[in-house]
Amino acid sequence: MIVVLASPAAIDPVRDAARRAGVRCVADSEAAPRRLALVGALSATGRDELAGSVAAMAGVEQVIRDPGPAPLASRHFRPEASVVQVGPTQIGGEGRPLLAAGPCAVESREQLLAVASAAVAAGAGLLRGGAFKPRTSPYSFQGLGPEGLRLLAEARAETGLPIATEVLAAEQVELVAEYADMLQIGARNMQNYALLAAAGAAHRPVLLKRGLGATLDEWLQAAEYLLATGAPGVVLCERGLRHFDPHTRNILDLGGALAVKSLTHLPVIADPSHATGRRDLVAPLALAALAAGLDGVIVEVHPDPDQALSDGPQSLDLDGLRDLAARIATLGISLATPQRVATRTPRVDGWAS
Amino acid sequence: MIVVLASPAAIDPVRDAARRAGVRCVADSEAAPRRLALVGALSATGRDELAGSVAAMAGVEQVIRDPGPAPLASRHFRPEASVVQVGPTQIGGEGRPLLAAGPCAVESREQLLAVASAAVAAGAGLLRGGAFKPRTSPYSFQGLGPEGLRLLAEARAETGLPIATEVLAAEQVELVAEYADMLQIGARNMQNYALLAAAGAAHRPVLLKRGLGATLDEWLQAAEYLLATGAPGVVLCERGLRHFDPHTRNILDLGGALAVKSLTHLPVIADPSHATGRRDLVAPLALAALAAGLDGVIVEVHPDPDQALSDGPQSLDLDGLRDLAARIATLGISLATPQRVATRTPRVDGWAS
Amino acid sequence: MIVVLASPAAIDPVRDAARRAGVRCVADSEAAPRRLALVGALSATGRDELAGSVAAMAGVEQVIRDPGPAPLASRHFRPEASVVQVGPTQIGGEGRPLLAAGPCAVESREQLLAVASAAVAAGAGLLRGGAFKPRTSPYSFQGLGPEGLRLLAEARAETGLPIATEVLAAEQVELVAEYADMLQIGARNMQNYALLAAAGAAHRPVLLKRGLGATLDEWLQAAEYLLATGAPGVVLCERGLRHFDPHTRNILDLGGALAVKSLTHLPVIADPSHATGRRDLVAPLALAALAAGLDGVIVEVHPDPDQALSDGPQSLDLDGLRDLAARIATLGISLATPQRVATRTPRVDGWAS
Amino acid sequence: MIVVLASPAAIDPVRDAARRAGVRCVADSEAAPRRLALVGALSATGRDELAGSVAAMAGVEQVIRDPGPAPLASRHFRPEASVVQVGPTQIGGEGRPLLAAGPCAVESREQLLAVASAAVAAGAGLLRGGAFKPRTSPYSFQGLGPEGLRLLAEARAETGLPIATEVLAAEQVELVAEYADMLQIGARNMQNYALLAAAGAAHRPVLLKRGLGATLDEWLQAAEYLLATGAPGVVLCERGLRHFDPHTRNILDLGGALAVKSLTHLPVIADPSHATGRRDLVAPLALAALAAGLDGVIVEVHPDPDQALSDGPQSLDLDGLRDLAARIATLGISLATPQRVATRTPRVDGWAS
Repeated sequence: MIVVLASPAAIDPVRDAARRAGVRCVADSEAAPRRLALVGALSATGRDELAGSVAAMAGVEQVIRDPGPAPLASRHFRPEASVVQVGPTQIGGEGRPLLAAGPCAVESREQLLAVASAAVAAGAGLLRGGAFKPRTSPYSFQGLGPEGLRLLAEARAETGLPIATEVLAAEQVELVAEYADMLQIGARNMQNYALLAAAGAAHRPVLLKRGLGATLDEWLQAAEYLLATGAPGVVLCERGLRHFDPHTRNILDLGGALAVKSLTHLPVIADPSHATGRRDLVAPLALAALAAGLDGVIVEVHPDPDQALSDGPQSLDLDGLRDLAARIATLGISLATPQRVATRTPRVDGWAS
Repeated sequence: MIVVLASPAAIDPVRDAARRAGVRCVADSEAAPRRLALVGALSATGRDELAGSVAAMAGVEQVIRDPGPAPLASRHFRPEASVVQVGPTQIGGEGRPLLAAGPCAVESREQLLAVASAAVAAGAGLLRGGAFKPRTSPYSFQGLGPEGLRLLAEARAETGLPIATEVLAAEQVELVAEYADMLQIGARNMQNYALLAAAGAAHRPVLLKRGLGATLDEWLQAAEYLLATGAPGVVLCERGLRHFDPHTRNILDLGGALAVKSLTHLPVIADPSHATGRRDLVAPLALAALAAGLDGVIVEVHPDPDQALSDGPQSLDLDGLRDLAARIATLGISLATPQRVATRTPRVDGWAS
Repeated sequence: MIVVLASPAAIDPVRDAARRAGVRCVADSEAAPRRLALVGALSATGRDELAGSVAAMAGVEQVIRDPGPAPLASRHFRPEASVVQVGPTQIGGEGRPLLAAGPCAVESREQLLAVASAAVAAGAGLLRGGAFKPRTSPYSFQGLGPEGLRLLAEARAETGLPIATEVLAAEQVELVAEYADMLQIGARNMQNYALLAAAGAAHRPVLLKRGLGATLDEWLQAAEYLLATGAPGVVLCERGLRHFDPHTRNILDLGGALAVKSLTHLPVIADPSHATGRRDLVAPLALAALAAGLDGVIVEVHPDPDQALSDGPQSLDLDGLRDLAARIATLGISLATPQRVATRTPRVDGWAS
Repeated sequence: MIVVLASPAAIDPVRDAARRAGVRCVADSEAAPRRLALVGALSATGRDELAGSVAAMAGVEQVIRDPGPAPLASRHFRPEASVVQVGPTQIGGEGRPLLAAGPCAVESREQLLAVASAAVAAGAGLLRGGAFKPRTSPYSFQGLGPEGLRLLAEARAETGLPIATEVLAAEQVELVAEYADMLQIGARNMQNYALLAAAGAAHRPVLLKRGLGATLDEWLQAAEYLLATGAPGVVLCERGLRHFDPHTRNILDLGGALAVKSLTHLPVIADPSHATGRRDLVAPLALAALAAGLDGVIVEVHPDPDQALSDGPQSLDLDGLRDLAARIATLGISLATPQRVATRTPRVDGWAS
């Protein structure tokens, strides 16, 4: 349940009541009036009792008994849109949308730096690139591994763009978090709860892709795992759902991305590359996502898509990225770029303690 | 198969060969160099023989043996985008996109005229409204019927907007075609072939909604029925597919709408009202469809959605329509409005004869 | 709403109240204690008032205010499973399940009689075969038409099997009903309401296929159209839903077929031929459907599937049909066969009057 | 590619050629004539060269260049159905089908032993039960953990039934493998490749559930990860796919389960509990799966489903399990039960070395 306080001073008795009931009390340092989430396993009667006693306390303005399946991620806990700070770039809030770009897989120094500098020129605010690749077949190229991480760090040093890269397993989190500004959880791992908990505990912002058969509620609950274990911010990424028509690889659920944005304070972006699997549809759907008001788009870019080790058919080339940037400008949309003076990320406090 | 001629003069021997093979020869009056479609049931060997003999004829530039499942609708038959003329409004081509607006069902003179004049003010080029309503339950309001058609005609006279309205059965076609500038075939009737044939034979432009489980190829083949039976133009409308998530009614397949546009010369528009079932998502998805480059959007509007006899939750009110128009303008997009000097619709000739 | 009477004598005041409220009162001649459905468009307050006044009447045992979206089809109206009488064969109830077999399309006298006599030998109770074929492409074989109907009648005369055949358009209903014991409404026409109304008015039992993106509620509402317009019985047929995996053509929703059977008194059968599109999967899924307790299966059979004009890849050959029959027997299941002494079909009375 | 040898003596030169080409050579100890899989990343030309040189070798009967996406799992590698030995129980092959039963989550000693002894009485060959539970919400009951494993081992000691239990993370594999006869990988982890690799390396048979949006090819490739990393046997379990109709939780893809069985030698079973989420549909769909010829079914059972900590609505009670067993017997189907003399599991050799 969510408890809305008239003033922050009323927090202690609520905290004590939560402790006695065996649930955790999580504070949102940003929301005003201050809001608390009481989360944990409670029977129906236990919940009723706790809600009743908290509602009667001095300084308690409102008790929202059912904030939905993901209380910390919900707008009940934080009515205003969150800003997620990734290095020098801000994602979400009421600000400019993000363009994230980069290769599917980091393949070489030359490949990565070519894309990274094109990304800067296009107005991107985040560089993406896979060092560890989840591959459907055990015999496919699995990424450069640690060497890929070092190349990403080099590209950041050259361009100033913060980097996001995928983490595939709990035991990789520490290594990846050493290099990356943002941890990416892929669609196939959206409900890999051990990985979610490890990623949350790394205290890095997370880019959480939607599973290709996942409901909005399941997606939010995966974000809840991250927030509940310590992630300072989560960006949701819609990347297409399983689909029956062979002309496109997946179907982009733009309506679902907008619907989830009405439920959560977290930023929501779209990935038109994975959503379609077709280079010619990437720019139109990126423009669609931005025009619809999402918080950004993430696209795959490769200097020579026909030679890409993975996802070539859906990668823009460098000209394609430049063209996308120009078309975004035509719509009158300005992008979020890295800023020197970083604002602190709003935190969800108290859970880890 | 599609036959590309070096000059229109070469048409007669091809026509003769088609007649001998028992298939029809359809000419496209717009395409240059002139193109012919030879369509009908042929065995594989029959097709090979015909293709071989036609390819050897003087003045035949190219024979495209497999133009896909819907030859007349394909870009092989007409490489450039079609313009569909609906009364004084042009849809498609390289021109401005369409905003079509109107109530789900025509309920009364006051309701319809209020919406129609708001539609004109918003820059709409087409008035939509149901006189005959397909209802899932036999006990729901089924529309005003002929009285609804008369009201639509009155609204056209008042506002100058051409009207599109749904036709539910072959025996209604004649009546509806008497009033409507454009016949609408609903999603549930996309594969009602008797209706498609009757609508095609009415020689009116048709708005063809995609069935909510239909593949792109099936959709194009439904359009092919219309073109093959005489429709002077068809506008395809993506209106959302069956979907598993309860937060939205359907899922809008924007990627599929774009993919189908790459296969066909016909205009493609989107219906964000039916695609989401949620008023708050209509404007964002309409903007998305336009930014992606579709040929238009169609939205449901009601002066008082809470009192609507059908589809209230997904209808914009008059302010909502005005707001949508303003947001379209902000993206720098100008809309197709009725023009006094009508261009003739490109015709597919020869079939009916 | 459904009204349960203590005795049939109480019917008149309820009927009068319904008439005054402007809704229809439909009686079920089979259910004991006698049940009435009051159906039609009513406002929420109108419904409350009517329910209240009826509940207070002498001889009224219970008023079920919300029997779901399809009252006449529901178990609230008729708690016991319906038997649908098709010529000499009974489908549904607590009796033996049906095996319906026949070619996709009637192609010739020889083809049809070969299949029909194999069907009799296999224990089938119904012969299926298309005279009018709904084809995705306008250029595909569309069936033999009236000649196909005559051949079906001849096969019935030879074998004693009643026949079911598809009707595609309202204006065909009269012709088809002249020959067929059962009208089939195809998946693509499940929500072709004009056709449903015409088929219901023909007073023939109807085989209603589920649309490939239709919910269970929509399917039941389509059956409701048939019952409300006069169909003496409806058999629901699950034939597979649109699906993303390319290894099968569709996905058979066996769970949904069972779930719908718990909601409706109508018999429910499965069509494993269309559900999979693969001959090798037809017999296993037919056995599955029968073992699960459905009221029957319908399979496509052709003497020489490789030469079939439609649906060859999913047709059993005559040996395949014989093998299926043998495997059904191995599970200890006996099939419903034509019986000389026909039981009258339970009727839904009073609507048409 | 798959290499078919005329005699096992021809193996060494093929092995050497594989080593030089940088791919692995995996032998199947069961298949006769002996078969080898050469697997790993190769360019198209590299593959052509290797295939050409191997095809020319003495004693090589056939080279299958494209055995599909999962060579080790394919029938090209092993034409006959595999038997997977789980403790004293055999799954698959041409033998009797399996009934696996148990609670969703191990909740207490009493609960588990009550279910286990009912499972033995019902003819089950495998006891299932979750010690570590993947839960959509971070605040739900997450299982008893190690204590659950100890209780499962106790139930095995009491009943003789081997046990299968889910493993959620790579770091849990060692602990779970200490207790379990069979490791279960859940639907949400089907593409958690780090977990698949760790599970394979534990050299235990694995029960691999299909992801609820996974294609058959993706499912087979997940099995390939297990086989390639050392799993001695894999049983595939279809447990329902994401679905749009609210009357059932998921849709059981029985046709897909049969289609995958035609592609792979691995046993395939069905889980009607998760597929429907409805107790009343569990037995009918279990019977359907067995009648269709799958290698078994797995059902959730709880002594008091209304009090279950998870999945109560889809759990059979003890009477329901007894009834299911009786209905299986009525179809003439005998179940696989634990046998004292264990046959060795066929092994995929040579990979780990």
